[in-house]
Amino acid sequence: MEGLKEIDKAYITMPKGFKANGISADLKGNNALDVALIISDVPCNVAGTYTSNLVKGHSLVRSIDVINQNNKIRGIIVNSKNANACVGQVGYDDACDIAKTVASEIGCNENEILTASTGVIGSRLPADKIKAVIPELVKSLSIDEQAAHNAELAMMTTDTVPKEVSASVTLKNGKQVTISGMAKGSGMIHPNLATMIGIFTTDADIDSKVLNTLIHNAVKHTFNRVSVDGDTSVCDMVIVMANGESGVTIEEGTEDFTIFDEALTSLANDIAQMIASDGEGATKFIEIEVYGAKNEADAKLIVTSVARSPLCKTAFFGMDANCGRIITAVGYSGADFDPNKVDLDLSGLPVYRNGCAIDFDEDLAHELLTKHDINVKITLHEGEAYDRMYTCDFSYDYVKINGSYRS
Amino acid sequence: MEGLKEIDKAYITMPKGFKANGISADLKGNNALDVALIISDVPCNVAGTYTSNLVKGHSLVRSIDVINQNNKIRGIIVNSKNANACVGQVGYDDACDIAKTVASEIGCNENEILTASTGVIGSRLPADKIKAVIPELVKSLSIDEQAAHNAELAMMTTDTVPKEVSASVTLKNGKQVTISGMAKGSGMIHPNLATMIGIFTTDADIDSKVLNTLIHNAVKHTFNRVSVDGDTSVCDMVIVMANGESGVTIEEGTEDFTIFDEALTSLANDIAQMIASDGEGATKFIEIEVYGAKNEADAKLIVTSVARSPLCKTAFFGMDANCGRIITAVGYSGADFDPNKVDLDLSGLPVYRNGCAIDFDEDLAHELLTKHDINVKITLHEGEAYDRMYTCDFSYDYVKINGSYRS
Repeated sequence: MEGLKEIDKAYITMPKGFKANGISADLKGNNALDVALIISDVPCNVAGTYTSNLVKGHSLVRSIDVINQNNKIRGIIVNSKNANACVGQVGYDDACDIAKTVASEIGCNENEILTASTGVIGSRLPADKIKAVIPELVKSLSIDEQAAHNAELAMMTTDTVPKEVSASVTLKNGKQVTISGMAKGSGMIHPNLATMIGIFTTDADIDSKVLNTLIHNAVKHTFNRVSVDGDTSVCDMVIVMANGESGVTIEEGTEDFTIFDEALTSLANDIAQMIASDGEGATKFIEIEVYGAKNEADAKLIVTSVARSPLCKTAFFGMDANCGRIITAVGYSGADFDPNKVDLDLSGLPVYRNGCAIDFDEDLAHELLTKHDINVKITLHEGEAYDRMYTCDFSYDYVKINGSYRS
Repeated sequence: MEGLKEIDKAYITMPKGFKANGISADLKGNNALDVALIISDVPCNVAGTYTSNLVKGHSLVRSIDVINQNNKIRGIIVNSKNANACVGQVGYDDACDIAKTVASEIGCNENEILTASTGVIGSRLPADKIKAVIPELVKSLSIDEQAAHNAELAMMTTDTVPKEVSASVTLKNGKQVTISGMAKGSGMIHPNLATMIGIFTTDADIDSKVLNTLIHNAVKHTFNRVSVDGDTSVCDMVIVMANGESGVTIEEGTEDFTIFDEALTSLANDIAQMIASDGEGATKFIEIEVYGAKNEADAKLIVTSVARSPLCKTAFFGMDANCGRIITAVGYSGADFDPNKVDLDLSGLPVYRNGCAIDFDEDLAHELLTKHDINVKITLHEGEAYDRMYTCDFSYDYVKINGSYRS
């Protein structure tokens, strides 16, 4: 059957022709993995989406420059612990130096290597430490599952679980391609995008312009609908690399395009849910849905407003069916609606109808709210627009993690 | 000398002809004060500003209706514990019933009594309990300091300290009037306005149209520049009552108007700082200032963005000079500026110049950040616009208070 088929295992080198590994450059200390490298055997097309923050990290700015040159690339090097941001021209130069070192070991041009950094902002990147381990890292590149997991582990900062997905996609006439994705992201997470680095690989052959359409479609209602704390970071990027090693070409406007588009979006959605679920200090995964908004803009305003409300997020942590706080956040969202028509359901339980709180079984509500996954459904009865956002609760641990993260 | 002179004592009945008191209607339990009444001996002019939330509490909506009728009023009754919001027409009717009971005890028209409620949203107000104590409350009305403090205590919810101000204002030719103010507000606080009720009294004789200008001027950069958690409540109001008992009239366009305007704004600013300082769980008072923004809109975007960033607020709790998080919040604010020209100072210490983190004495920074009052100064070098916002840090106690507030 056509479409996406999830595979039991999930790692970034499942598509043909990709190798990866992670290594410790002693950035985090304790020999923890902190530098990741993903390389395609052959030059591949690439497309990406980036943070909307006016302040952008230097490694990211360099990658955007490279991608805008519209060349094929060979891969990407990522370091954690230091965001390489807000340090001036040296930060850009450091990213170039690192790319140059990788390129010389791989045997390619420095503009075929993307760079990404995540971690603390405002400290000079210890580029020498990273450059020193690159020869060994390049030698260790492998298609092995563990090597691929190492790459993921090396990207993680405050993440508590790895975030990896893989699927095989069956196209028309039985042709098959594979897509894998991996991401890091836990705090400083808010749409467009987040302290989030997402990397997808595929062995499909896809033109970079088509790939650009596909990655933008995929992030729109997935990565761009995750909010952990409302803070949009300076280093976020989601890229997809397509090396064509499957021999299968996907062109815009075809049925195969649609199948691939849905598959990539579905995998992006899986990762988006993992990120919200692993939000800093999170004890709950919360899906905020709005139905019946006047238009798409209003729908987005409402889910965003509820998802970033500290009062709603602490109430979820307290497992309190506090519909007043949710309705308040809906009210100040800036969306236009009649407050007397609003309905609200918490994990399927009606708690608010026609602008009024209604009696509900508090014990049942509490039972529903003790579950890990919570659904908030807001219905406006104004129009047909729908949106959805993933978030998590605000816990003591969020404060603990972020009251002491830098040092 | 002309202008404002702060008085040693501060309570709402210092202006001539105002009486007040607070009583327990057993809404909070433990005999805690929960109903406040402030009454002028003679009818007074009134003006107010209200929450911008589309969802508005019923007691507030009724007060707006009364004020819009442009009658003189005699006073205001406020209850805490229950916001009288999101319960439908019965909520509006309950507010009318309470006003009617007060009016009948005072001997005035029900449309001369304003109503305000603060507390939990979505539960029916126990109006009978409130009505039952009104006769005794009216009998207890007094100009006494303690009675006035009781009114303030009765308005408080999660506030930990009362917020009262008083000043004598000397006008041209030595004429004197008095202004007092009291407020409650601790959580669900964000501009336009907050779960905040502010009440000012003055014995000046001021036309209600002029009073309207004065109260809007006063809140613009004070109450409307306080953010505790980014949540704009459904019940907020700030009103000013002017009963003319001093015999001194203030007209628009006069020097006296300017003197009074500055005095009222200064008192509003004092209360705004008290509210930020007493933010739920707050351990720090933080003033965010931006200099050199392109225009007023950009300046406001930037101070708002930093003031509501959970990552900045947890870093302040951790006393961490994390300039990266502040610059990140500036970057995603939506304001237009050149990131390479930004400067940042923390409590006077330069930490960031021309878009780059600079070396600073970490020990000195930590020492400055252990103080209760912290100043964040962002300079953009783009234009002349300035703005300022008051906020507090995010602590374990914010989560504790709000993870368990409703029940």
